[in-house]
Amino acid sequence: MARLRAALIGATGLAGQQFIAALKNHPSIELTGLAASPRSAGKTYAEALKTASGMTAWFVPEPLPAELAGMKVVAGDALEAKDYDLVFSAVEADVARELEPRLAKDIPVFSAASAFRYEDDVPLLIPPVNAAHAPLIREQQRRRGWKGFIVPIPNCTTTGLAVTLAPLVERFGVKAVLMTSLQAMSGAGRSPGVIGMDILDNVIPYIPKEEHKVEVETKKILGALRPAGDGLTPHDVRVSCTCTRVAVMEGHTESVFVSLDKKATVAEVTQALREWKGAELARNLPSAAPRWIEVLDDPFRPQPRLDRDTHGGMATTVGRIREDGVLENGFKYVLVSHNTKMGAARGAILVAELLLAQGLVG
Amino acid sequence: MARLRAALIGATGLAGQQFIAALKNHPSIELTGLAASPRSAGKTYAEALKTASGMTAWFVPEPLPAELAGMKVVAGDALEAKDYDLVFSAVEADVARELEPRLAKDIPVFSAASAFRYEDDVPLLIPPVNAAHAPLIREQQRRRGWKGFIVPIPNCTTTGLAVTLAPLVERFGVKAVLMTSLQAMSGAGRSPGVIGMDILDNVIPYIPKEEHKVEVETKKILGALRPAGDGLTPHDVRVSCTCTRVAVMEGHTESVFVSLDKKATVAEVTQALREWKGAELARNLPSAAPRWIEVLDDPFRPQPRLDRDTHGGMATTVGRIREDGVLENGFKYVLVSHNTKMGAARGAILVAELLLAQGLVG
Amino acid sequence: MARLRAALIGATGLAGQQFIAALKNHPSIELTGLAASPRSAGKTYAEALKTASGMTAWFVPEPLPAELAGMKVVAGDALEAKDYDLVFSAVEADVARELEPRLAKDIPVFSAASAFRYEDDVPLLIPPVNAAHAPLIREQQRRRGWKGFIVPIPNCTTTGLAVTLAPLVERFGVKAVLMTSLQAMSGAGRSPGVIGMDILDNVIPYIPKEEHKVEVETKKILGALRPAGDGLTPHDVRVSCTCTRVAVMEGHTESVFVSLDKKATVAEVTQALREWKGAELARNLPSAAPRWIEVLDDPFRPQPRLDRDTHGGMATTVGRIREDGVLENGFKYVLVSHNTKMGAARGAILVAELLLAQGLVG
Amino acid sequence: MARLRAALIGATGLAGQQFIAALKNHPSIELTGLAASPRSAGKTYAEALKTASGMTAWFVPEPLPAELAGMKVVAGDALEAKDYDLVFSAVEADVARELEPRLAKDIPVFSAASAFRYEDDVPLLIPPVNAAHAPLIREQQRRRGWKGFIVPIPNCTTTGLAVTLAPLVERFGVKAVLMTSLQAMSGAGRSPGVIGMDILDNVIPYIPKEEHKVEVETKKILGALRPAGDGLTPHDVRVSCTCTRVAVMEGHTESVFVSLDKKATVAEVTQALREWKGAELARNLPSAAPRWIEVLDDPFRPQPRLDRDTHGGMATTVGRIREDGVLENGFKYVLVSHNTKMGAARGAILVAELLLAQGLVG
Repeated sequence: MARLRAALIGATGLAGQQFIAALKNHPSIELTGLAASPRSAGKTYAEALKTASGMTAWFVPEPLPAELAGMKVVAGDALEAKDYDLVFSAVEADVARELEPRLAKDIPVFSAASAFRYEDDVPLLIPPVNAAHAPLIREQQRRRGWKGFIVPIPNCTTTGLAVTLAPLVERFGVKAVLMTSLQAMSGAGRSPGVIGMDILDNVIPYIPKEEHKVEVETKKILGALRPAGDGLTPHDVRVSCTCTRVAVMEGHTESVFVSLDKKATVAEVTQALREWKGAELARNLPSAAPRWIEVLDDPFRPQPRLDRDTHGGMATTVGRIREDGVLENGFKYVLVSHNTKMGAARGAILVAELLLAQGLVG
Repeated sequence: MARLRAALIGATGLAGQQFIAALKNHPSIELTGLAASPRSAGKTYAEALKTASGMTAWFVPEPLPAELAGMKVVAGDALEAKDYDLVFSAVEADVARELEPRLAKDIPVFSAASAFRYEDDVPLLIPPVNAAHAPLIREQQRRRGWKGFIVPIPNCTTTGLAVTLAPLVERFGVKAVLMTSLQAMSGAGRSPGVIGMDILDNVIPYIPKEEHKVEVETKKILGALRPAGDGLTPHDVRVSCTCTRVAVMEGHTESVFVSLDKKATVAEVTQALREWKGAELARNLPSAAPRWIEVLDDPFRPQPRLDRDTHGGMATTVGRIREDGVLENGFKYVLVSHNTKMGAARGAILVAELLLAQGLVG
Repeated sequence: MARLRAALIGATGLAGQQFIAALKNHPSIELTGLAASPRSAGKTYAEALKTASGMTAWFVPEPLPAELAGMKVVAGDALEAKDYDLVFSAVEADVARELEPRLAKDIPVFSAASAFRYEDDVPLLIPPVNAAHAPLIREQQRRRGWKGFIVPIPNCTTTGLAVTLAPLVERFGVKAVLMTSLQAMSGAGRSPGVIGMDILDNVIPYIPKEEHKVEVETKKILGALRPAGDGLTPHDVRVSCTCTRVAVMEGHTESVFVSLDKKATVAEVTQALREWKGAELARNLPSAAPRWIEVLDDPFRPQPRLDRDTHGGMATTVGRIREDGVLENGFKYVLVSHNTKMGAARGAILVAELLLAQGLVG
Repeated sequence: MARLRAALIGATGLAGQQFIAALKNHPSIELTGLAASPRSAGKTYAEALKTASGMTAWFVPEPLPAELAGMKVVAGDALEAKDYDLVFSAVEADVARELEPRLAKDIPVFSAASAFRYEDDVPLLIPPVNAAHAPLIREQQRRRGWKGFIVPIPNCTTTGLAVTLAPLVERFGVKAVLMTSLQAMSGAGRSPGVIGMDILDNVIPYIPKEEHKVEVETKKILGALRPAGDGLTPHDVRVSCTCTRVAVMEGHTESVFVSLDKKATVAEVTQALREWKGAELARNLPSAAPRWIEVLDDPFRPQPRLDRDTHGGMATTVGRIREDGVLENGFKYVLVSHNTKMGAARGAILVAELLLAQGLVG
């Protein structure tokens, strides 16, 4: 079967590079177009990455694929939907607001940007958690008169939290969550992202807008598609969080306190997390993890450097599951989630795979 | 006035060095004896710090005072109480259990070790918070037949938390606290403490025994001396926490969620913290901070590297005070407290100053 | 005596902040004017530091002096020489090229920028090393028709190297130097300076233009004023270096291999460094270190975190002096020099103090 | 073909774990025995890694192979040579001195320890560089009356240097080398290795014994087997170095200044490094890199985090090749070499593969 032709907008930034690394050797999707700012247009991708000082600004650990190094970059504005089956978007929110709707008229857009996350007819998909929200795309197409659609992925900090809450919601019900994140630098990108002098021997206790995103997105992701399929009813879980930045490259660590609807034991909570399989539709996708959650018994785990790459960065690792003693039916645990794999590029690709498997793409 | 003669046990370790740095030029206390393990006994202090490879194992930023470099080190066992007015103890808990009671028979022992923290007749003093517990020492002397006494300081992670809870308890009452700490490496000492390969590009989500200490000690510190003066009634605040280690040298950061007894506004909570003066008895001690809590308006603060040394490391800095939205009368904030100054050596010296001012020492 | 009135251009950047911290409580110089880009003009200094996200962009460890927080910032272009006795310049090289000559027409300009370092009539002063070059200022004034002058300080990487070479040149003569630097992040400033993701768990083996600066400046600094006083003859030492960046906040470490003109022993080299007093004129300046070089016997020293602040960051610490065995009369050693104190702001202030003492300022 | 049965001594330490990770799925060698200290004997390997606090002390990034987790560990003293075809040794030098000769009586021992590196009849093999030294093993067997032999690998800091010098020696001749290393923490192991508080925001300018090792080993590796095959004539290159430790996990960076015998251009030196194929015998070994040296044109490379894993950590990456201007026919460059892959476990396995291919093992 011919692979689907995908364009990538925002190809030169760190987020774009993560898409390129993640799509290397993908079985059903092929990157055939790279778009970036007008400054890069007309250059090969390798030339576009070259800085004035001679540096090749390629920052992901995987090597730059040779077949893309020589590909001509086009300006985002000049990208033609007819040449592609789908688009991945790694642009900033303000650019996304212009570019994504233009493309979505004709083809699906899978986006890491926050621009459309909070619109009524836009699902926020984490396939194992809420594949059931996918039909909302039909409503989006109907309302907007689009042949394509926009599906953003959640904020990277929301993803690990939502993945671990899903089995608890299913098994026990969840009333409230209090979370403190210790986030990696890669989430901030490189323009300039986190400055070295600010983070060495330090913690930065504030990430603008992040906490609000996590609070709103978690409720939306865990919500239910209304019977009419025309919108989502957010889950009534209350979420409060404090988001901090630490001197870690990749992998967000989150300290979670959760209040369940029902009494449970540590063993039952552990089992619920460990046995969770997630939505059936998501299990056999090419980028699916064999298990979405790995519970670690070693009390010193999870650690971001050791655990972020579990199952290719697609699993959320969990440890230190304990009773909380303060909240009603309270438990606490620590999770690590790879913010630029499951929480960004590879997460968006997983969504594309899901919709492809459901016949909504291609 | 002649200064009091103090001995230091555990003088060669990192905690001992912090006492030495903190007592340099102290107006009323003079270090006149240094004790360490038998291996060091008979050497000068500078010789005792010298390792096989030629390194002088002095690790605090302040220079080693010349007058101590040449002082002869004695074995802890050989220290004679009669030569001193008081003792500071920087030994490990197991050594403390042997050594401290022997000395406390005759003179006061101010200890950073956890060995006696949880005994009924032992107060856990943070002068601005609970100077009122000091009279429990009389009970301790009575029960044990000692002329001296043992006063341990709390765990360094407890200190900043208790300092910030104190004004909230006084003004609004506190029901419950959920806290996640991001702790500095210095709290683990250097034998070997935190290993470089374990903490670079990483977070370690577990510090053995730490969470239990914080939960128990916070209730004790915020409790009340029983009318008979023969013990403490712990505060009924419920405390739950997750303690993690990050790549920071000094200064513990804590993300706190707190449920108050009464409704309040962010402005009122901020004011309560900002205006808090602490116990009157503690205000004019030589090591007292001009304000025990500094509230910072910059949303990116407090940060451990920038704020740990506020008022000589004796102030707790607080920022990001917000409503929590989940807990009853819930608020959240971030604090930074210097774990080896207010949270260790200088905190113990402050306790000595308090008891000296009250006529309980010297 | 009234203190001299100094203006600071480039006041809001990191380098400017270092000048502010260094001039706090200066005995003979008072900051009475702050200039920055037009964007900051008209605001108070504290307002000018405030970013859109509410952060106060003050990055040096010393607190922002209250008396400057409320001072009105003027645009660099609008600064009037007649209101000041001297100017400190912390602007980038391109801005320096415009602004500094305009001010130098009337008053002395002490600059951290590289713009004028390589001009024939411009000395590059490190007071203990080459105070004898100061009279070149007269030539500069004559040629350019200025009442003031421009004196830049050397690149921060050059400073520590030149300080340690000076006693070797004086005692033994120096033929050649091969140096590898391990430089701190602060040298790169914060716009954006070194990006966190680039330096964590990493070394960056290239700092554009740095090596050339060190090679050229070292020869100029160690050179001799021509008898006519109309220029400098560079020293004929050959210098080759590789400059790298490491995850250190402040303090450049340099691994030096040096070939002397004459045979010497390690003891003689050590003694030459240890006993060096530097130019007599520089010894009693307010910012002078009691010793410009501190030789450490501990083989694990100097270390940037432990040694950078020796004598207020004005001393160069040296250790590991050994025979080299490869170069002719070869020796090797390691040095640490504070790149933003002796190597930048405080170094420039020291130059001002020197010229003030010589009657060339004020 | 049945795979050779290998035992590993020192299996529980970090170096041992690196052997285990590197031998996973090896085509011709199978780990069938694990030996460690008597304390671990009788436990399964997974049990032996478990610490008192519940941590599984497995520190390499690759997961612990399931088939080894359950294998019983034996005491090194109890290991029987007759059960194995060869031994890998990851013990400390003092243990190696006892254990390795006992085993070498019967079977080959490939060792990461320094114990036997400097003996006359012991080659120090880096297969692409000096495969020609392998026959010295016959002399060793003859002299000592052993059926097996000991082949240590060089110090990890020597390896990258020797690999890059080899093509220069072959093409131009090399007179002298001055090198400054910026070494990763993993080279120091974890007992305790580099302490976190010592290396954060710091450089440690001394690694005991390291410089002497590099100086002696480089000459031996680049030397020639004497015609009689009874010893090695060291190369007469003069080597001088300064070895430092930086906050990097893996990958040693070295700043090299080299003096060649003949005139050359940067282009010629670059070509010599880039085209070097190494000893023919080493080219097709299972662990061989497709190229032993990768020259990078980006001036900001090589960087340890980005380049250490080139070709599975078996290639040395080189950049910043420039004329030196000080040394006779002088050049300078920067290299990165993976200290625990090519420089340790995988390097020792490569040696075993070489001798296996030559019929000297099995």
